Amino acid sequence: MNRPATSPLDRQLLAALRSSLGPVPIALVLRNTENLPNTNSPIIGTVRIADRSTLLAMVMNPELGFGDAYSAGRIEMEGDLVRSLECVYDSPGIRNWYWRLRSKWMDWAQANTRSGSARNIHRHYDLSNDFYRLWLDEQMLYTCAYFPKPDVSLEDAQEAKLDLVCRKLCLRPGETVVEVGCGWGALAIYMAQHYGVSVKAFNISHEQIVWARECAERAGVGSSVEFVEDDYRNATGRFDAFVSVGMLEHVGLENYPELGRVIHRAIGDTGRGFLHYLGRNHRQPLSVWIRKRIFPGGYPPTLAESLQFLEPHNYSVLDVENLRMHYARTIEHWLARFESAFDTVVREHGLEFARMWRLYLAGSIATFRVGKMQLFQVVFAGSRCQSMPLTREHLYTPDREETDNELWTRATY
Amino acid sequence: MNRPATSPLDRQLLAALRSSLGPVPIALVLRNTENLPNTNSPIIGTVRIADRSTLLAMVMNPELGFGDAYSAGRIEMEGDLVRSLECVYDSPGIRNWYWRLRSKWMDWAQANTRSGSARNIHRHYDLSNDFYRLWLDEQMLYTCAYFPKPDVSLEDAQEAKLDLVCRKLCLRPGETVVEVGCGWGALAIYMAQHYGVSVKAFNISHEQIVWARECAERAGVGSSVEFVEDDYRNATGRFDAFVSVGMLEHVGLENYPELGRVIHRAIGDTGRGFLHYLGRNHRQPLSVWIRKRIFPGGYPPTLAESLQFLEPHNYSVLDVENLRMHYARTIEHWLARFESAFDTVVREHGLEFARMWRLYLAGSIATFRVGKMQLFQVVFAGSRCQSMPLTREHLYTPDREETDNELWTRATY
Repeated sequence: MNRPATSPLDRQLLAALRSSLGPVPIALVLRNTENLPNTNSPIIGTVRIADRSTLLAMVMNPELGFGDAYSAGRIEMEGDLVRSLECVYDSPGIRNWYWRLRSKWMDWAQANTRSGSARNIHRHYDLSNDFYRLWLDEQMLYTCAYFPKPDVSLEDAQEAKLDLVCRKLCLRPGETVVEVGCGWGALAIYMAQHYGVSVKAFNISHEQIVWARECAERAGVGSSVEFVEDDYRNATGRFDAFVSVGMLEHVGLENYPELGRVIHRAIGDTGRGFLHYLGRNHRQPLSVWIRKRIFPGGYPPTLAESLQFLEPHNYSVLDVENLRMHYARTIEHWLARFESAFDTVVREHGLEFARMWRLYLAGSIATFRVGKMQLFQVVFAGSRCQSMPLTREHLYTPDREETDNELWTRATY
Repeated sequence: MNRPATSPLDRQLLAALRSSLGPVPIALVLRNTENLPNTNSPIIGTVRIADRSTLLAMVMNPELGFGDAYSAGRIEMEGDLVRSLECVYDSPGIRNWYWRLRSKWMDWAQANTRSGSARNIHRHYDLSNDFYRLWLDEQMLYTCAYFPKPDVSLEDAQEAKLDLVCRKLCLRPGETVVEVGCGWGALAIYMAQHYGVSVKAFNISHEQIVWARECAERAGVGSSVEFVEDDYRNATGRFDAFVSVGMLEHVGLENYPELGRVIHRAIGDTGRGFLHYLGRNHRQPLSVWIRKRIFPGGYPPTLAESLQFLEPHNYSVLDVENLRMHYARTIEHWLARFESAFDTVVREHGLEFARMWRLYLAGSIATFRVGKMQLFQVVFAGSRCQSMPLTREHLYTPDREETDNELWTRATY
């Protein structure tokens, strides 16, 4: 049987896409034209592109073109989606002049001013609590879990994360904590329930705050946890500890100095703080597709970029841990649950939305696996903080009694 | 009995010194003129200044004037030296325009070019092995120890540090390690003896290299540890792991990019690395006295300054630990031993030298206690490193078996 003749233009366009992808072991197919990589590795996936205009959009801007075409069903992926994306994310050169132009424009259009942040956060986190309930754990934790062992369940790994945060902060009964960007409130409630602290927690996502308040009442800690629907920049009051899980990546580099001042106003020189955020090995804006469709205004900083704002306030960084592979595992759980609920997502939100979120979750697993993205947990303390332990052993031997002479001691006068 | 009349000029000069010190609870005394702080805290020490020219030198440049006058015996300190220095180091304003001028000049005069580094390192580390033997532990470890419990002996704490470094690097038998700035060789020897790795270790201090080679022979690891008397910039070869303990603070900011290239040449994308160094909370040059008399060319970086050079090579920072209070405790041990050997030091090196080193050690304890200086341990890994564990639990449960599925896993293709 004869295959239909291939078009020279299609061949050219596929070759152009290939040149920006590099020799990843993925076949590119447009109608009856196929482009194979120049590699000895076995082919692990096939990208079937529906038409020439889709291919053209991908050549112009591979990230956005691919993301939108996949969501719209104008691209089908054969083979393991996550594994294929790993190969693509690992290739160096899919960012051209057009990408840089789009990226700059987005920096401006999605800037995290107070109104910009409100808009950006609303778009992602206020999608609907019912949607997130389909694939998150029961406590609605939408941040990296902690797997003491690889085969721990998502529920247990999320609880282990909550406890790890509390132990890293060395919370003691009666202390006060301010949390900024508190999501659906699980950490604030956990701290109050299990560590006997009182918490004031800020968030600008209306849907999340309403949910969090109900959960706190149900958990019987309504009087010790206050959820405030407001920007972190408006946080007032004085506290023993500051905590932020999954907010720094939404703050934007240009607002870090102000975040530093907010923290110093909250805990001064005597308190301690905890940051948990998406980061990078080297400076690079987020994918334009992710910023356009998923996380407007997002920017994952390098450690150097993100620790700098603690310097003017003389905070000592005590501990940094990279949990990148824990995030890959967390999202594997989310994606599996998402796939189980796929039909429901399609029914409620349409096929394009469902495919977009599948791509975002699969791509996130890939990005953590190949190390394009990192997850940093940072513990810091003020110059007059006197209550942090001398070693980190207490994080791994939770039943051990802490003795006073194991604390950081500092002469006072 | 009448006290002799005080001189108005002396009073003025003492007031000028006080204004740069702030209300620290220390009396300043020149002959019969006394200046007391405007504070309610009890006075904890007295600085007795021998003459007006000494006082003038301190007003002009408090750091250098005080350090040199103390060494020369033109200043006597009454009260606890370390506690008094803590108060002074905690005061904000002892750096004036004259200080900045001296500091800039030193930046230039002590720059860490290849010949500059050789000169700088020779001045400190080649003083004489016999001198360091008087107050270091038997293995001659001249870096921060690790105290699993506060009352551990210096010897045990140094051994605990060596083992902590090996566990942080996850060394396995048969692997190869490059060490830069290896001191008297204790870590290289320990790694070979206890972890079965072979080590190539670089150092430009001649006295230290000679000593290290002898120790390796005596320990029976002469064939698996090679000590090279050369600059870290000349390190060649390919290794599984890179380690540097106590060198970054001698490298100088301007040479970090080159150090990054040296590391990448040595371990590529598959290896992992470990850095242990003096650091700061915020950017600030070292005391001019320390640079002039003790550590020429030294600069302790902030975390942000020091992690930046890993970015171009796509290294993932996996773990940062701040051991500042361990260094305070380490130097408390050193100072106690130094005081026991004080008469010997005076006999061998003169009183001025002995007082200078007493001040340096006492001041170092103070500087770590008040948090003017930090001690960072950093673990990083290349983007294709596949052999780091998922959690840090193994650091605190050394007897536990490691299982394969607890390693960072990364798809390969």
